[in-house]
Amino acid sequence: MSKKISRKDFIKTSTVAGVGLSVLPFNIVKGKDKSKVRLGFIGVGGRGRSHLAGALARDDISVRAICDINKENAAKAQKMVRDAGMDEPELYTRGETDFRRMLKRDDLDGVFIATPWLWHVPMAVAAMEAGVYTGLEVPIATTVDGCWELVEASERTGVPCMMLENVCYRRDVMAILNMVRKGMFGEMTHARCGYQHNLLPVLLDENGNFGPGTVGESEWRTYHHINRNGDLYPTHGIGPVAHWLDINKGNRFLKISSHATKAEGLHKRIVELGGINHPNASIEFKKGDVVTSTITTARDETIIVTHNTSSVRPYSLGFRCQGTKGLWQVDGNTIYLDGVSEKHDQWEPFEPYQEKYDHPLWKKYHDEAVGSGHGGMDFFVRNAFIEAIKRQVNTPMDVYDGAAWSVIGPLSEASIEQGGATVSFPDFTDGRWMKREPDFALESSEF
Amino acid sequence: MSKKISRKDFIKTSTVAGVGLSVLPFNIVKGKDKSKVRLGFIGVGGRGRSHLAGALARDDISVRAICDINKENAAKAQKMVRDAGMDEPELYTRGETDFRRMLKRDDLDGVFIATPWLWHVPMAVAAMEAGVYTGLEVPIATTVDGCWELVEASERTGVPCMMLENVCYRRDVMAILNMVRKGMFGEMTHARCGYQHNLLPVLLDENGNFGPGTVGESEWRTYHHINRNGDLYPTHGIGPVAHWLDINKGNRFLKISSHATKAEGLHKRIVELGGINHPNASIEFKKGDVVTSTITTARDETIIVTHNTSSVRPYSLGFRCQGTKGLWQVDGNTIYLDGVSEKHDQWEPFEPYQEKYDHPLWKKYHDEAVGSGHGGMDFFVRNAFIEAIKRQVNTPMDVYDGAAWSVIGPLSEASIEQGGATVSFPDFTDGRWMKREPDFALESSEF
Repeated sequence: MSKKISRKDFIKTSTVAGVGLSVLPFNIVKGKDKSKVRLGFIGVGGRGRSHLAGALARDDISVRAICDINKENAAKAQKMVRDAGMDEPELYTRGETDFRRMLKRDDLDGVFIATPWLWHVPMAVAAMEAGVYTGLEVPIATTVDGCWELVEASERTGVPCMMLENVCYRRDVMAILNMVRKGMFGEMTHARCGYQHNLLPVLLDENGNFGPGTVGESEWRTYHHINRNGDLYPTHGIGPVAHWLDINKGNRFLKISSHATKAEGLHKRIVELGGINHPNASIEFKKGDVVTSTITTARDETIIVTHNTSSVRPYSLGFRCQGTKGLWQVDGNTIYLDGVSEKHDQWEPFEPYQEKYDHPLWKKYHDEAVGSGHGGMDFFVRNAFIEAIKRQVNTPMDVYDGAAWSVIGPLSEASIEQGGATVSFPDFTDGRWMKREPDFALESSEF
Repeated sequence: MSKKISRKDFIKTSTVAGVGLSVLPFNIVKGKDKSKVRLGFIGVGGRGRSHLAGALARDDISVRAICDINKENAAKAQKMVRDAGMDEPELYTRGETDFRRMLKRDDLDGVFIATPWLWHVPMAVAAMEAGVYTGLEVPIATTVDGCWELVEASERTGVPCMMLENVCYRRDVMAILNMVRKGMFGEMTHARCGYQHNLLPVLLDENGNFGPGTVGESEWRTYHHINRNGDLYPTHGIGPVAHWLDINKGNRFLKISSHATKAEGLHKRIVELGGINHPNASIEFKKGDVVTSTITTARDETIIVTHNTSSVRPYSLGFRCQGTKGLWQVDGNTIYLDGVSEKHDQWEPFEPYQEKYDHPLWKKYHDEAVGSGHGGMDFFVRNAFIEAIKRQVNTPMDVYDGAAWSVIGPLSEASIEQGGATVSFPDFTDGRWMKREPDFALESSEF
């Protein structure tokens, strides 16, 4: 308990003393190493248990508490810990707000939150108020106010809130980040990204049903498609792009303009599975099959973000990274760099560049990462969160990143509602983006 | 002269009689075959001479008149006709308005216009008023008013005005059109296209100069980059997409929202070629390096159009054709079609589909097309224009097509000027798009 209290005291002290809070919100003492990071988990469905499994593979953590309203999931998770030969964690399964009881424990250093989206804000705010490092699944919030609540909570408590955006650690986008920073793309002008992934089998079960009684994300996620028309899931795409473009660190998102196509995919799928008389066949889904947003930045770049999850299609995050000297595109995985590529204005395969410009962090952690979830990305994002807790330093992605990326969701809804009007981004950093320096995955970064 | 007069008389009569002009503007007698189509050429620079060469390869045309303010070009063109063993055409080189004198001839059936963009409208209007089939290079106009002028001239005179949009005949996009019409993509939802072509070597000579005294398009085209910020060249991309989506034939463009990046490419190139003290290094180019537009349609599809001509980069028109059953992307040339593709949600190479669904017109004209300009497309667009004249029927692309596609230029400028606001498309068809039927490149089409 001593460590916990002392950190809380420190945070309180530094806040009261006002030690540069407006410049560096998280004045956590560096070098205060923890031998074992004591973790809690809120939400141990598919995603939460995947984080748990990854954590259990480490020798520097212990799992103290697990919370889920689904007792079966909680028991599964508890068994995983037991099977890993660790002390059994306490379970919190008494209902939707039992996470608050869990956060009253005084032995938690960090918490992983992997719950339905609408729970992200209250849970993360509660965790920060309990002084617990907060690792939150994507998106961190579904409303503008929710993003602000998290920012304010992190500033108020001095507790880091890291969105667990794994794609920022994808091997190719990190090599690209490396190359962007070496100036190989010249001055950045344009980027593309998105979440193009056929989620029809996730949003509907094999009988065309969703909601209570179905298993997995169809229990809650499908409702967002009924009620919202916008980019419901922007962060996998925009995260890597934000790092390329120094968003919140010398640059920021200014405006967004979004457009949606007709909504056909979910209805079509329901009819295919259950016929036109299926009770769900009469639902009018609000979410268009393809939502595209154009974002402009303070440095006069543009970014096109695509959300396309209710169509049959191959998976693609649709990345493009373009500057005055050339561009990379993930579809086809081709690159052209002026003065580097052999043939003038001709695509080259990206593979040799991937090898040559592999990010230092990937070189360092390669062996540990491979075999972990989602091609290694999951290892990195968990590792970063846990290593930050261990060292009691800021997380490499902070609440401003999470807010700026997640707010694309509600802003795109507002734009579509207004017929594609441009909508301004809030500046969650309150102007500090102008002075902040890039700190994600630097050459010198340890994690 | 008899044929000419008689057609003019017919047009006049039908107009006076009001024979359904509002439904079918070009009531030209079918089957009135011409043995030799008598052609004129206005503008015989690079592009005009390429059309001339293509025409000269045919045995069903004669070239009566050639107009260019550049006497050298005119002489070169005249020699080409002579070398083809045909009667020498008369030259019109007395200045910028000498095309009007040329159009007073009474022996022209059709005219190719390939001049700097700002001349397109007055020349085409004059040609239509002279009763001469008008084949006009892309874009047909650079202003909204210009598009209207052409529409009104074509309706008033009853003379077809065809934009010579060659990419509509590109082999892959025609196979895709074939597949769209067979319903293989399901219901269309989304498309992408654009003009992504490094024109820096065209816009600047090897000393970083442009304007009078330089050769080719740098003489005039570069000024558009100084004075306009928008999609300067939308039609190569949007033409094929418009056919996939039945634009003006049951569907129409509703709104557009455009955004531009910073303008770096031209300045950077000038400095590279001539140093920072080069007189052109102080020019502020208005045109952003990457301009992206999102268009919404009456059928609730969206289209993203990209213009990117001042960056070093490989050429790509960036096509995507997407519907409820799958999608094709030109970058990587991959396709996925639900229930057709072997593996669920996995890309396949497009080549076998290209072979299987090659458009009937390509099968018909393959041997003639191959070896003509731009991979055969140029043959098709010229052939369509000339065959329509020969048969005295409507051209397969009409003034409404040219206007709806070209107007993206000025509308994107207006949107960017208003910070990305959505701007409405004029309905050049005055509501007739609801009743018009697709007629481009049908299975039954002869050309």
